[in-house]
Amino acid sequence: MTRKCIKNGTIVTASDTFFGDILVDDGIIVMIGVDLDAEGAEIVDASGCYVFPGGIDPHTHLDMPFGGTVTIDDFESGTIAAAYGGTTTIVDFCLTTKGKPLASAVNAWHAKSKEKAVIDYGFHLMVSEVTDDVLYELPKMIEEEGITSLKVFMAYKNVLQADDGTLYRTLLLAKEHGALVMVHAENGDVIDYLVKQALSLGQTDPIYHALTRPPELEGEATGRAAGLTGLADSQLYVVHVTCAQAVNAIAEARMKGLRVFGETCPQYLTLDRTYLERLDFEGAKYVWSPPLREPEHQQALWDALWNGQLQTVGSDQCSFNFKGQKELGRGDFSKIPNGGPTIEDRFSLLYSEGVRKGRLTLHKFVDVVSTTSAKLFGLFPQKGTIAIGSDADIVIFDPMIERTLSAATHHMKVDYNAFEGMQVVGEPVSVLVRGEFVIRNKTFVGKPGSGQYLHRKRFGEQ
Amino acid sequence: MTRKCIKNGTIVTASDTFFGDILVDDGIIVMIGVDLDAEGAEIVDASGCYVFPGGIDPHTHLDMPFGGTVTIDDFESGTIAAAYGGTTTIVDFCLTTKGKPLASAVNAWHAKSKEKAVIDYGFHLMVSEVTDDVLYELPKMIEEEGITSLKVFMAYKNVLQADDGTLYRTLLLAKEHGALVMVHAENGDVIDYLVKQALSLGQTDPIYHALTRPPELEGEATGRAAGLTGLADSQLYVVHVTCAQAVNAIAEARMKGLRVFGETCPQYLTLDRTYLERLDFEGAKYVWSPPLREPEHQQALWDALWNGQLQTVGSDQCSFNFKGQKELGRGDFSKIPNGGPTIEDRFSLLYSEGVRKGRLTLHKFVDVVSTTSAKLFGLFPQKGTIAIGSDADIVIFDPMIERTLSAATHHMKVDYNAFEGMQVVGEPVSVLVRGEFVIRNKTFVGKPGSGQYLHRKRFGEQ
Amino acid sequence: MTRKCIKNGTIVTASDTFFGDILVDDGIIVMIGVDLDAEGAEIVDASGCYVFPGGIDPHTHLDMPFGGTVTIDDFESGTIAAAYGGTTTIVDFCLTTKGKPLASAVNAWHAKSKEKAVIDYGFHLMVSEVTDDVLYELPKMIEEEGITSLKVFMAYKNVLQADDGTLYRTLLLAKEHGALVMVHAENGDVIDYLVKQALSLGQTDPIYHALTRPPELEGEATGRAAGLTGLADSQLYVVHVTCAQAVNAIAEARMKGLRVFGETCPQYLTLDRTYLERLDFEGAKYVWSPPLREPEHQQALWDALWNGQLQTVGSDQCSFNFKGQKELGRGDFSKIPNGGPTIEDRFSLLYSEGVRKGRLTLHKFVDVVSTTSAKLFGLFPQKGTIAIGSDADIVIFDPMIERTLSAATHHMKVDYNAFEGMQVVGEPVSVLVRGEFVIRNKTFVGKPGSGQYLHRKRFGEQ
Amino acid sequence: MTRKCIKNGTIVTASDTFFGDILVDDGIIVMIGVDLDAEGAEIVDASGCYVFPGGIDPHTHLDMPFGGTVTIDDFESGTIAAAYGGTTTIVDFCLTTKGKPLASAVNAWHAKSKEKAVIDYGFHLMVSEVTDDVLYELPKMIEEEGITSLKVFMAYKNVLQADDGTLYRTLLLAKEHGALVMVHAENGDVIDYLVKQALSLGQTDPIYHALTRPPELEGEATGRAAGLTGLADSQLYVVHVTCAQAVNAIAEARMKGLRVFGETCPQYLTLDRTYLERLDFEGAKYVWSPPLREPEHQQALWDALWNGQLQTVGSDQCSFNFKGQKELGRGDFSKIPNGGPTIEDRFSLLYSEGVRKGRLTLHKFVDVVSTTSAKLFGLFPQKGTIAIGSDADIVIFDPMIERTLSAATHHMKVDYNAFEGMQVVGEPVSVLVRGEFVIRNKTFVGKPGSGQYLHRKRFGEQ
Ligand SMILES: [Zn+2]
Ligand SMILES: [Zn+2]
Ligand SMILES: [Zn+2]
Ligand SMILES: [Zn+2]
Ligand SMILES: [Zn+2]
Ligand SMILES: [Zn+2]
Ligand SMILES: [Zn+2]
Ligand SMILES: [Zn+2]
Repeated sequence: MTRKCIKNGTIVTASDTFFGDILVDDGIIVMIGVDLDAEGAEIVDASGCYVFPGGIDPHTHLDMPFGGTVTIDDFESGTIAAAYGGTTTIVDFCLTTKGKPLASAVNAWHAKSKEKAVIDYGFHLMVSEVTDDVLYELPKMIEEEGITSLKVFMAYKNVLQADDGTLYRTLLLAKEHGALVMVHAENGDVIDYLVKQALSLGQTDPIYHALTRPPELEGEATGRAAGLTGLADSQLYVVHVTCAQAVNAIAEARMKGLRVFGETCPQYLTLDRTYLERLDFEGAKYVWSPPLREPEHQQALWDALWNGQLQTVGSDQCSFNFKGQKELGRGDFSKIPNGGPTIEDRFSLLYSEGVRKGRLTLHKFVDVVSTTSAKLFGLFPQKGTIAIGSDADIVIFDPMIERTLSAATHHMKVDYNAFEGMQVVGEPVSVLVRGEFVIRNKTFVGKPGSGQYLHRKRFGEQ
Repeated sequence: MTRKCIKNGTIVTASDTFFGDILVDDGIIVMIGVDLDAEGAEIVDASGCYVFPGGIDPHTHLDMPFGGTVTIDDFESGTIAAAYGGTTTIVDFCLTTKGKPLASAVNAWHAKSKEKAVIDYGFHLMVSEVTDDVLYELPKMIEEEGITSLKVFMAYKNVLQADDGTLYRTLLLAKEHGALVMVHAENGDVIDYLVKQALSLGQTDPIYHALTRPPELEGEATGRAAGLTGLADSQLYVVHVTCAQAVNAIAEARMKGLRVFGETCPQYLTLDRTYLERLDFEGAKYVWSPPLREPEHQQALWDALWNGQLQTVGSDQCSFNFKGQKELGRGDFSKIPNGGPTIEDRFSLLYSEGVRKGRLTLHKFVDVVSTTSAKLFGLFPQKGTIAIGSDADIVIFDPMIERTLSAATHHMKVDYNAFEGMQVVGEPVSVLVRGEFVIRNKTFVGKPGSGQYLHRKRFGEQ
Repeated sequence: MTRKCIKNGTIVTASDTFFGDILVDDGIIVMIGVDLDAEGAEIVDASGCYVFPGGIDPHTHLDMPFGGTVTIDDFESGTIAAAYGGTTTIVDFCLTTKGKPLASAVNAWHAKSKEKAVIDYGFHLMVSEVTDDVLYELPKMIEEEGITSLKVFMAYKNVLQADDGTLYRTLLLAKEHGALVMVHAENGDVIDYLVKQALSLGQTDPIYHALTRPPELEGEATGRAAGLTGLADSQLYVVHVTCAQAVNAIAEARMKGLRVFGETCPQYLTLDRTYLERLDFEGAKYVWSPPLREPEHQQALWDALWNGQLQTVGSDQCSFNFKGQKELGRGDFSKIPNGGPTIEDRFSLLYSEGVRKGRLTLHKFVDVVSTTSAKLFGLFPQKGTIAIGSDADIVIFDPMIERTLSAATHHMKVDYNAFEGMQVVGEPVSVLVRGEFVIRNKTFVGKPGSGQYLHRKRFGEQ
Repeated sequence: MTRKCIKNGTIVTASDTFFGDILVDDGIIVMIGVDLDAEGAEIVDASGCYVFPGGIDPHTHLDMPFGGTVTIDDFESGTIAAAYGGTTTIVDFCLTTKGKPLASAVNAWHAKSKEKAVIDYGFHLMVSEVTDDVLYELPKMIEEEGITSLKVFMAYKNVLQADDGTLYRTLLLAKEHGALVMVHAENGDVIDYLVKQALSLGQTDPIYHALTRPPELEGEATGRAAGLTGLADSQLYVVHVTCAQAVNAIAEARMKGLRVFGETCPQYLTLDRTYLERLDFEGAKYVWSPPLREPEHQQALWDALWNGQLQTVGSDQCSFNFKGQKELGRGDFSKIPNGGPTIEDRFSLLYSEGVRKGRLTLHKFVDVVSTTSAKLFGLFPQKGTIAIGSDADIVIFDPMIERTLSAATHHMKVDYNAFEGMQVVGEPVSVLVRGEFVIRNKTFVGKPGSGQYLHRKRFGEQ
């Protein structure tokens, strides 16, 4: 493997900004400085650019079955798009099946990803029940597979939803074995009723997806999960926080000293509920759970990133074609597959809407888009920063390029772009994973299967 | 100036930890890496040690008149002790006099420090009135002197206390000119009554100092200052936060998106109100304003550092000899000079009580003891981190040394140590300022006058 | 029916206190004044006494099956004891069975009470499911039976517990038909796990009943129910509030303008968790759900009555003999029948601990022990006050009598007294229901079956 | 003095509603019942009407000097208007002068009122300083004059404003002597600056009165006063609460168990800030301090009355003619005399906007417009209710009359009506004070000087 020297960039980490060079050897950052002697190294010119640690996306659903269909982007198209977008590591959700061994699910996920991923990846494990078998197997998954984060759903009644007893036991297990519990926090019981009720009244359009999942039900479930975390003296990560109510619940818990963390997503920071009202069933493109909210919630989310009450931004990438997939829900919003394509634009959107608009400092941007995810999910300092000894996962980012997000130009397989037409400033020009170009001058030069599986450390270990 | 290479340390910044070497040239960090070629450079061995950015103490009172006496540690003894303790930059409070030009106060402070300081230093400026003269002169102080932080006292009635109108105007001025307003937040009017009332009842012992300044009055004033900051859309830094009430007021303001920051001090994190009850007037050694609190407040402060609602730890160094100075208050606690010696032990105490006891990560330790102060007070990235281009202000810290804090071994001039007898783990072995040793193998090797005055950037600039 | 004139008492209502006489005709209060002409009326001397409206106990379980046994006090012994204690109306919980008509449950409850009750009574109806049958039948129960309050359990998993969807639907139904939803608010799922876990560890003593139902789980469920009430724009009454966490959840909801009300019970105001640690299985006598709390919660409850965040005090009478019933739980705390005997002492305890100790005014006492229950449960102004046209349900209360609560002297059938040995000041001397003596000079003079069933008004009607 | 029998009304108190008659003898209510024998009594027919206790207005400024002028309504016109409006008792603010005996102020107020008042009245006493003289004299005022409420201003810098030390001492004095401290809660220091600043920018129109007194400054001062009350363990009544921020501060204090109470006024419940923008200087008519707020605050105030966080509604009657008085502020809003005419319409507005619009129950209406003021200010049960032994202060109120509020028909001397053109439903038809008609069939039949001075009880006494 060659040496590389990334020269003359403005290097940015979660705490520092400086001008200089980075020397990479064997995929590892070995030297940082000014005017480094790059003899024997390939020179990569970063002048005029920011040099960021590669983005870490802690929340993706690639090649995942959902409601009778499967997300259209798999570990190949999904990770290629991620790389184009400046993301060099993802942690994907491995879905388990009740009554089946956890190992079979993990093996299935390895099978989906091994030959395809172009960037590095890990898995979270979904916990839908806590049986004797699960109790026996879970510690092994943590130890042997390095899967140190467990997902519990408080919604999707009769499908994915776990009851509070299961959530509580998972919190206890996580504490014992050093894992981080993740929750999808919405009150699934009430949503289930609201959905049925809406359908029975003939309210079938996409907007009713949002109206049957009000923010109060997200705030309630978030507070409940945080409360149980305190009782269990465990640790919690609330995925895809969308609203002021949930932010407040997290902040209250943190003020009491609880280890509760929160993630939001680019769509909640930039889009709003009116998108679901788009004509010709276009609203279906914007069906996420939790749903897009009224615009005033966006400020609450930006404030929470600023003041540290939310710590990360994940994509919740979960893409379905409009044609043939989202369309399954014509005439019944509850049949619209939930989710959208966000893995590619997460990084640039955060830069453009966050840093450029004065809502985030450069450091906070790096922190929420990369560093803190590495720290929370057992990847630090291998991932998530530019430091001696870390993997050379690097984004060379030109902050001057103006462009328009669009399905016409994106690299995901999915047939629409959630941010279609949005102007952003800044673009990843080249992206390296462990010192190798995956994107070079805006062109994919990587190779499916080159991404490595990440055996992650336990929560709190470094 | 020689080149130096600090080798084989565990280098820690506010976001990173890694093993490696640091190359320093002309006082500036120029290279960081593993196995750096140190040819031509003096080798400094850091093996087995942490290599931290030098501590920044944002809150000192050296050579300061107070209540008819003067703090015993001046810019020489004070900065030497600071250096021994791992602090390489201080920002000292320049006291102004009503009716006199601000420049005269600043000049006086330059005179106190210029020939004496062994580490770098800046000044905060006290604002006790907002007259036409002050309005005229203040922007010049900010521009020409780089004094970009302004202190307002809400206590010390008839002495330093400013009214709310003055505080509000200062907030507006600060916003306009890019400065950060600092407040001593206690309700001085009520304290004034409580003190007089206590004295009239013959309650003259040191403990009455604490009893006449209850935490409710700090919480109230903190909330008031934060509220005015919101109204002025300005920025606020609350010095020496001691209690849950004040933490809550800060957190509430931050949750609303306000730019409100808070500092606590080592004494509030580790000592409590019972110290003021020590016999033989020993309690006077522990007279700070705000006072030491009941023990349960300590947890609130540690929690607030952890969850980011407090951002820095300053010393509030303000030392008076027990003999001859603290003793002025025998028979009348209100005559005890307020303050104590903390500049030397701040850094090690935070490490020992914070990191070692699992309350702070290594990164958070660096953040609160150095980095965030640099960012808030216009010194970053020159100070506050270990990064290419930054000043080589470096602490080589042996985390294994066990020792006992004591006046017998400290380097301040003052005749007692506030933490006398406390066991700590970890000690700065060598300390460099701009690449020059000030402390080498636990011995002072610096030179009075070698510290440089810091012309600081405006708030929010980098 | 004779006329009666209650003379020379100090008459107290929820807002008034005055000296005077009350003239009763045909069971109705027809005149109030000083020196009333009592010609043709039986004179009842109340001099030296308070004359209160009869207590209303909104929460009793008489003759109720629970965990394989039945509460020992039925509508005869229970209402006799209530009358001795100053209570002239109860609202008892009618338990329904899933899959059976509501009417069958109501009829069963009529059968239990009709020939036995010596004071007036109504029924709340438990809602454990919302099926088409229930939807059809419930409005009829409200209309025809005047059962305008519906109880939902958030605990007792697999037994009584309803899920959040059922709670939400009940809130919607209640809104539509003018009923008040009552909740037992504890997180049953988590409790279920904690109980199993404790038992599996051999933790079988009564104290584990309390330790497996921590206050956090009551606070959580209370907040959840209040949140769903807001979403449904309905009305909620939280029964047996025991802790600061639940009080805060109610207060927060009320501050947002929600129609959320709360009840506490004498046991939570006066006893604490240490009672469960009593030796020889005596702790079982103090097993309520939610459990007795640590002592500091008592102040929160008294404060909440004072400031109006809790509005009523019910007994939650649910008595089981120690011998043969509570003993079912020897060796397994989860088999201890939940509940205790409180119907008799509720009124006097509130007076003695509340009014005499300065925690409640006389008016607030009447309000929480009688008037507000009448208003919330559709009984006002027939019940709950001393006013023209109201039923002459009257307590003549001697505030000077000092006595000791004890099973030796109480009138319940149950074989122990929860407040055994407690000194109280004040005792009901005579009690009238609709103008007829039930208790006269501390002697029962009523007749089983004389109590009347109360067809209650809808929520909000007067 | 004749006996009177008020027959066939719907009698309403703070807790009761019933149909019946009231017998009055010698000015005192002696009997209440159905079909009372009215032999020898004058019959007053109340059929079709509500019979309410007379309104108590706890906040008036009659014949009061302010800013170089004097309120236009004195104790004659003011109390006549009050009577027309259904108010039978007022408590007026007696202004003291620094350095002069309190007695001189009280005597001046007796002189203003004695020959003029047509309804009963008491005085609050303003405390602007706490000197030895005041300390000596205040207990005598409380004891001898029955002046058991003390007013402190936190605004009106350099005029009425007291500092926090004075407020705190007053709270201590009040606790010791059984008085209730009242505050005008706004941050006067900051307002003083904002006003000067606005004027210096040529912002002279009435709307700037509102813009220079933002709600944040009311919320801050309210929280400060409540905090000091807690510290002093005393009691506080916040006059004229106008905004959500202040309501929240009061509610928070009450939740901690503090004896903090709040009053709002009809203008804050029904008018908003846009009124100050009326052309031709008409905005000056709506200049109150604190100012009218943005409309959303109205809901917060209604909610707070409903949930009990605010307890009373006072008028803050303080009337100045538009011609010649309000006009003093043409070209300089700070010279507009503060206040408006509200004494007459307070009662009817609360009924019409509160009861008729479903925001208040009939009982809550009586409570906030009369009963609680009596209880807080030492007038209960003489005033504030319809009960045996109470003064026969009675309003016969026809709830069917529709009318329009207007200066053309009002009975105040002032030349405009603050609620001009507002439609209300309901009108006091006849009003009795101590059994004597003051208003009979909408006509004044009283006599100046017939009102009696009220020597009030200490706080907490009944
Ligand atoms: Zn999800
Ligand atoms: Zn997801
Ligand atoms: Zn200070
Ligand atoms: Zn200081
Ligand atoms: Zn229950
Ligand atoms: Zn019950
Ligand atoms: Zn005022
Ligand atoms: Zn006023």
